Amino acid sequence: MRTPAQNAHLALLLEVAGTPKPGNVDRHRDLEDLRFEHFLAGAVGAQRGLEQAANGGAVGPAFERSVEGMAAQGGGNTQFGALLLLVPLVRAAADDLSQPVVEAICEDTTVADAAGFYRAFDHVDVFVGEPPAEMEPLDVRRGSDAVPALEERGLTLLDIMEQSVPGDDVAREWVRGFERSFVAAERLAEADGPLTERAAAVFLSLLAERPDTLVATRSGEAVAQEVTERAAELVERNALETDRKIVERFADELVERGVNPGTTADITAAGLFIALERGAITV
Amino acid sequence: MRTPAQNAHLALLLEVAGTPKPGNVDRHRDLEDLRFEHFLAGAVGAQRGLEQAANGGAVGPAFERSVEGMAAQGGGNTQFGALLLLVPLVRAAADDLSQPVVEAICEDTTVADAAGFYRAFDHVDVFVGEPPAEMEPLDVRRGSDAVPALEERGLTLLDIMEQSVPGDDVAREWVRGFERSFVAAERLAEADGPLTERAAAVFLSLLAERPDTLVATRSGEAVAQEVTERAAELVERNALETDRKIVERFADELVERGVNPGTTADITAAGLFIALERGAITV
Repeated sequence: MRTPAQNAHLALLLEVAGTPKPGNVDRHRDLEDLRFEHFLAGAVGAQRGLEQAANGGAVGPAFERSVEGMAAQGGGNTQFGALLLLVPLVRAAADDLSQPVVEAICEDTTVADAAGFYRAFDHVDVFVGEPPAEMEPLDVRRGSDAVPALEERGLTLLDIMEQSVPGDDVAREWVRGFERSFVAAERLAEADGPLTERAAAVFLSLLAERPDTLVATRSGEAVAQEVTERAAELVERNALETDRKIVERFADELVERGVNPGTTADITAAGLFIALERGAITV
Repeated sequence: MRTPAQNAHLALLLEVAGTPKPGNVDRHRDLEDLRFEHFLAGAVGAQRGLEQAANGGAVGPAFERSVEGMAAQGGGNTQFGALLLLVPLVRAAADDLSQPVVEAICEDTTVADAAGFYRAFDHVDVFVGEPPAEMEPLDVRRGSDAVPALEERGLTLLDIMEQSVPGDDVAREWVRGFERSFVAAERLAEADGPLTERAAAVFLSLLAERPDTLVATRSGEAVAQEVTERAAELVERNALETDRKIVERFADELVERGVNPGTTADITAAGLFIALERGAITV
């Protein structure tokens, strides 16, 4: 029997092993400076923070610790967003891994949890957009330097997540009861075949539904929209079953263009964790 | 900073991610019923036993626990031999990861450690050859049923390993101070490129030097000899650099023939651990 922390760890590994996952590092693709091995080491490093969450540790500090461990490899940010989803989910699993429980955990977050979230940015460079002017003191890129402003305004981690919506679909999961993560888990359970193939199929289905917010931030809304439309066409044609090569080509093309739908990968990892933890999928 | 147990865990992941690793599951190849995801789950499951060893736990019980956790996936035996090397190495790392220290740990093993080793066979089917008649009561396939015979004869785990040489090159490492594991670590440090490519190169170099004992047991000495000769030709030609496709074809051919040089993979994993733990390679 794997513990919740171990299932979260395995979810990170299965996510990166899923292929083809257009635009991202996967079992068959590396980016230039961000390789498969960085994701393996990132998952191993995150383990202690995940255990802290599983043992009932507060969400913010457990997240910071998981990010600090994840960052102990040379590729940079590998699983920041995935951990931001996994930490409250792992915490919920100690009680009951359901949407109401994880929502309650998010609602119960404090200013100290928000401070942990900001401190996590001290450990790794995360690509984020410019904040609006009134939020500049709370720009996450300030990391722990933003903590006094945060405390002054009395913002909890859930407050911070609410201010990041729309524009960040990881934050949206926090605000919407991890809706898409639970949907992903159901799809993983319903799919056939090895888990690495199911992960790829569910990734594509999620990408087909909503423009990836990391792509929108980095490459613009138009590119994010284009990627989603093309993913939708592939899903519509059931291309993973009927014309896998075209999906492989789409994956290569996005890698070449530097278009990495990382938010969609984060939600896939969250779905893998939920499905593993509930026994809806087995390895 | 990763702990020794985390480095051992990462070594297992990097080993299976190395490609092409002729005949074995790798980043690009699955066997029919033994897939990449089983190795990921095996590595995650082994973690607790590795931590037990890192915390100074006795070798036999830590090994049994790591195998029990490793076996909690549907693929069967994924990393039994690798763990038999990693557990004493992790134990040594708590003190000093050198050949004399790990040799001393092996020499200090007891009958209770041997019993843990036998009990590990209760958790997973491991392919082994027929023992000689006088060893039948100690056939490892009897698992814990062999423990009374073991206790009667007063055999330590090192004694058992000595009786398995020649014919099992994992046991040979125990008897020879982990000679090839340390050589593998040096080669990994001297190689260039991503660790997954270094792992593949070192695997091939080890395979080129000595016939794989798992292949010899399963497919016969002649096949093991043939595989080593072909690996030696590829190394001689520096084929991984100059004609990678031919190595890929060799890898596919061995997978098709069901020829899996698992012992060589085990030693590669041990080398990865030593090199990671000493900081001779970094991710």
